[in-house]
Amino acid sequence: MSEVNKDLLKERLQCTFDIDEMTTFFYGGPQKNFNRKQRDTAMLSGSEEFRNEVPEDYFSHKEHYEDGIKKSVAIFSLVRKMQREGLTSITDYRDALSGLLGSAVVRDGSALALHYIMFMPAILNQGNEEQQAQWLPRAWDFNILGSYAQTELGHGTFIRGLETTATYDPATKEFVLNTPTLSSYKWWAGGLGQTANYCIVIAQLYTKGECHGIHSFIVQLRDEETHEPLPGIKVGEIGAKQGLNAVNNGFLGLDNVRIPRNQMLMKHAQVLEDGTYVKSKNSKLNYGAMVFVRVVIVFDMVNYLARAITIAIRYSAVRRQSQLKEGEPEVQILDYIMQRHKLFIGIAACHAYRITGSKLWDTFHDFQEQLQGGNLDRLPEMHALACCLKAMCTSDITALVENCRRACGGHGYMRSSNLPTLYGMVTAGCTYEGENTVLLLQTARFLVKTWQQIDTKPLTPTVSYLKTAGAFAGKWENSVDGIIRGLQVVAASKIKTCVENMKKRVVSGMSFEDSWNVSSVQLVAAAEAHCRVIIISTFHEEVSKMMPSVSERLRPVLQQLVELYAVYWALEKLSDLLLYTSIGKEDVDKLQYWYEELLRKIRPNAVGLVDAFDIPDNMLNSTLGAYDGRVYERLMEEALKSPLNAEPVNSSFHKYLKPFMQGKL
Amino acid sequence: MSEVNKDLLKERLQCTFDIDEMTTFFYGGPQKNFNRKQRDTAMLSGSEEFRNEVPEDYFSHKEHYEDGIKKSVAIFSLVRKMQREGLTSITDYRDALSGLLGSAVVRDGSALALHYIMFMPAILNQGNEEQQAQWLPRAWDFNILGSYAQTELGHGTFIRGLETTATYDPATKEFVLNTPTLSSYKWWAGGLGQTANYCIVIAQLYTKGECHGIHSFIVQLRDEETHEPLPGIKVGEIGAKQGLNAVNNGFLGLDNVRIPRNQMLMKHAQVLEDGTYVKSKNSKLNYGAMVFVRVVIVFDMVNYLARAITIAIRYSAVRRQSQLKEGEPEVQILDYIMQRHKLFIGIAACHAYRITGSKLWDTFHDFQEQLQGGNLDRLPEMHALACCLKAMCTSDITALVENCRRACGGHGYMRSSNLPTLYGMVTAGCTYEGENTVLLLQTARFLVKTWQQIDTKPLTPTVSYLKTAGAFAGKWENSVDGIIRGLQVVAASKIKTCVENMKKRVVSGMSFEDSWNVSSVQLVAAAEAHCRVIIISTFHEEVSKMMPSVSERLRPVLQQLVELYAVYWALEKLSDLLLYTSIGKEDVDKLQYWYEELLRKIRPNAVGLVDAFDIPDNMLNSTLGAYDGRVYERLMEEALKSPLNAEPVNSSFHKYLKPFMQGKL
Repeated sequence: MSEVNKDLLKERLQCTFDIDEMTTFFYGGPQKNFNRKQRDTAMLSGSEEFRNEVPEDYFSHKEHYEDGIKKSVAIFSLVRKMQREGLTSITDYRDALSGLLGSAVVRDGSALALHYIMFMPAILNQGNEEQQAQWLPRAWDFNILGSYAQTELGHGTFIRGLETTATYDPATKEFVLNTPTLSSYKWWAGGLGQTANYCIVIAQLYTKGECHGIHSFIVQLRDEETHEPLPGIKVGEIGAKQGLNAVNNGFLGLDNVRIPRNQMLMKHAQVLEDGTYVKSKNSKLNYGAMVFVRVVIVFDMVNYLARAITIAIRYSAVRRQSQLKEGEPEVQILDYIMQRHKLFIGIAACHAYRITGSKLWDTFHDFQEQLQGGNLDRLPEMHALACCLKAMCTSDITALVENCRRACGGHGYMRSSNLPTLYGMVTAGCTYEGENTVLLLQTARFLVKTWQQIDTKPLTPTVSYLKTAGAFAGKWENSVDGIIRGLQVVAASKIKTCVENMKKRVVSGMSFEDSWNVSSVQLVAAAEAHCRVIIISTFHEEVSKMMPSVSERLRPVLQQLVELYAVYWALEKLSDLLLYTSIGKEDVDKLQYWYEELLRKIRPNAVGLVDAFDIPDNMLNSTLGAYDGRVYERLMEEALKSPLNAEPVNSSFHKYLKPFMQGKL
Repeated sequence: MSEVNKDLLKERLQCTFDIDEMTTFFYGGPQKNFNRKQRDTAMLSGSEEFRNEVPEDYFSHKEHYEDGIKKSVAIFSLVRKMQREGLTSITDYRDALSGLLGSAVVRDGSALALHYIMFMPAILNQGNEEQQAQWLPRAWDFNILGSYAQTELGHGTFIRGLETTATYDPATKEFVLNTPTLSSYKWWAGGLGQTANYCIVIAQLYTKGECHGIHSFIVQLRDEETHEPLPGIKVGEIGAKQGLNAVNNGFLGLDNVRIPRNQMLMKHAQVLEDGTYVKSKNSKLNYGAMVFVRVVIVFDMVNYLARAITIAIRYSAVRRQSQLKEGEPEVQILDYIMQRHKLFIGIAACHAYRITGSKLWDTFHDFQEQLQGGNLDRLPEMHALACCLKAMCTSDITALVENCRRACGGHGYMRSSNLPTLYGMVTAGCTYEGENTVLLLQTARFLVKTWQQIDTKPLTPTVSYLKTAGAFAGKWENSVDGIIRGLQVVAASKIKTCVENMKKRVVSGMSFEDSWNVSSVQLVAAAEAHCRVIIISTFHEEVSKMMPSVSERLRPVLQQLVELYAVYWALEKLSDLLLYTSIGKEDVDKLQYWYEELLRKIRPNAVGLVDAFDIPDNMLNSTLGAYDGRVYERLMEEALKSPLNAEPVNSSFHKYLKPFMQGKL
């Protein structure tokens, strides 16, 4: 290994805890951490073939796609090999795929991902046994490649408004699929453009002249041999995007495309041969899949943030700029309090979201069994929680990744820092799988309903605080518990205020829907407050539970992260605390002092804390964040790879510049 | 013109004011508005040749550069033509260049811009008369093309730490320039990579064995005929960035490069033939140029925001999604209160920053004359103001443009919306020409100094409120004046608290510098509070002054924008108001209600307000924001331009996908 930057060396020597222990803690225990390492090592073993001489940042859009296919095929071949060797399975594909490695090799997403993330799960969850037997083995082996087309040009959020139709024709026992308008063209599905040859299409089902709402259909798009689009299929990609340009998001127009009856997924609802529609016994089962996908997004986002914060912290230890005192050497920028203020919260947020996500995942897992058993009591709660957690997580982490980029100054704007790419990925998360504002309003709807039934129905666990907090008016206490109680009061008060305001408006003659709309700024704030309570309290509780099993050296470090997260958000949401709790000016001064102390205490462990995320250089992919801290050398090495630097004089000089400079243009 | 979307038509019919009047108002009066239109029309007349069949979003990095040169040359040829016809001059090049049009044609910046923005002004401001006579005519005619190299790999913010050296050799009467280390390589200068053949280089001046700090030198980089780099010059581009990829930012290494003595810019300091150094009479004169550049940035940012908000508002009028009430038609998303909450503040911010920028520009202009006369009294104040205004403006507008993008859902993530490109431009502004946190701390330094001398020195105009506000403890008043007074109290209190806390720390033994660092989170907040006071009060005052001269129909609209801006920021900074003023819970409820009312009142004029920014489609460059609202048609038309859609089957299918799907990979 090359020589390590001296400042980084010094940072590592002063770290007070055992990095391996923290890594094991972060990845959820020895077994999970071992699996992760094993999987990553297996995949990295072949990673050198993934590296281009000219980085993909210099590619055209088309080259970008083709390179993405090359790499995706290479990485999925590895996944297939590992499947055969029993090293991975569909249950942990989320790690193999959307985890740290997958996205480092195919930096800008993969056109094959949706096959795994949506196409196969849709068949698994919505197909009956025969359909599963018919389609899954081929999909599992990648003999067919699927996409999942729901969103249309004119409809994203409001899926009931989708315009694509599937009309049953009993004469031929086929469905006839159509996109009757421009706005009904399917739009956005990953891999749909030039990659997939099959697709799940969501369409309004018509049979016997009646519409039965949206259902899922398997449609073949391209010939399996030639890959040519089939008759009636108009398919292509939707064009360049802010990021994710290797995903090959596509559009799809359908012109009287006929598919056999058994290509409607029929585990739940069915259409019989004669066209009779048999309703699903449980229309709410699909919510389960949405909860699942949203928790996966939380894990993905944590992975992206862990990378961004690793880059920014290491760079801040290497970069020296300006003097604190005249005549003294320039200081590591990590020594500026503002830099710590911008970055340390990112470390804490990684842990907070990782732990809250895991908790929701486990709860959801238990709940899945209840769901299969027909017990849907906790479904609204779980759904509400997944909605706000996805929204807050993507929105927080987008802001944090942007913070990381800006904290690296100009160099953070270089693509070779990897920060712009990471930003492109996380900000997309604010929109896909439920636009954040829409999701927060769904959570708000659950909270309002809960509040209205607070005296008549038992409260489910994540909202049980609403009852006690509503009555709480105690003295402010500057502790993590005190902050949690304070924020609980805030959340409860905000929900209460919304309910009361809406009631007033309805009494004065406004419709409930309009009063809901007018109150929506407040409703979103209430949902956010609720979600922040859940995150801080889960983070606090879970860490407290694990404290006895970690070493004495690690304990204070974890405690500091919990405190930092709580105090940071108390200060961010100070107006709420001032409005709804008994916090006073002196308490605020103390909070501020506590925060400054935490920034001071965490400082010596900052590099250790990001080292513990254990992201190897070839997954980090950053000139600024590499383990050895050779920032300037790498920046120059990467610059020299630009094709523009391959020739001393660019052709545009002779073609345009010179004639212009000589006054001939 | 093609048919206009019906919803947009309806919006325009319900607009309550005269669009032309608002346009005239926004662009600073009839004369300025006329000049703008004339200039734009002249330039747009040749704009069709600028349009590529395949949009640049699909280009490789190299093609992007070459296309940028082609377009820059075309646009600068037009500028040259207009100069000759007297239609433009160097004094208003900022409009021609960085204004709406320039950046719409060369969407991702121009490699030629720095020639105008930095190279020529440097010679003008720092060169003596002979130097100006020697260099300016050739530069004016583009016979030579210049860049401006200050930042190095290792130094951006701390320019005193620059490592490049210029050592005077009296034997040959030359300066010898060197970049002695990797970290001293010049890095970031626009156009430096493959474009410029001359460059201003900032270097540490050594003569007679002594270092005299940084000075400016004209260095020839490339042969004027062949464009080959000259001996001792190592030059190239720094590589792909998040945005601005047509700017050709470059690096520069100098190895014993010799230039004649008269290529040090010597208007202020001089090196005589024998090597004697003659000090500048006024070391502070360079601050003037920095103030100038930062105000230009404010105008640029307003232009970008005006475009983003035009796109988002028009799209929100066209897009219909979901029902407010069951069974009713889907509503325009502009009817959702959350959408108005996200967007309307952007309209108000355009006006607020435009007006505050103009005011600073005018004040600065007056001040320039004083400066030339040797009166530097207001220099610190102007500098402090330009620092915080640049920081707040870039940071606010980055957040607002991101808001616009997210408010357009998935389609906002498409490059064809133009929102990702606009985001790339504005977020860069947070870093260049002074990193925002560093700038805010400079403003804070001025404020702290002012506070310390509050009883001994007369206060300059923009800080005079500190004296009265400090003593103000009146009753809260829910009016724009009341909000301004409240925020003045906040700013004054924050500065006071910072000063007191630092004093305490110093008394307890901490050095002033360390106490400054520990307080920096608070100091930044104080500078922000001060700047917000200046923006709101300037916006309010200037609009009030102009009220008598505008029509009755326009008056309430302008008033609403001022109120919206004030109330929005009062609610955003509520914790400060709660901590430092007498505002109570009932006042907050009223503020909230006032805000909701403003969102309701502004709604019917939303489209009119962005129409008034008067940005033609070929400058807006957006599928979502065009005047006719044909959103879906344009999205599809643009998608079809992707080179990937030019062939039914991509070559990667045969090369990678098919073998993989058949199990052969």
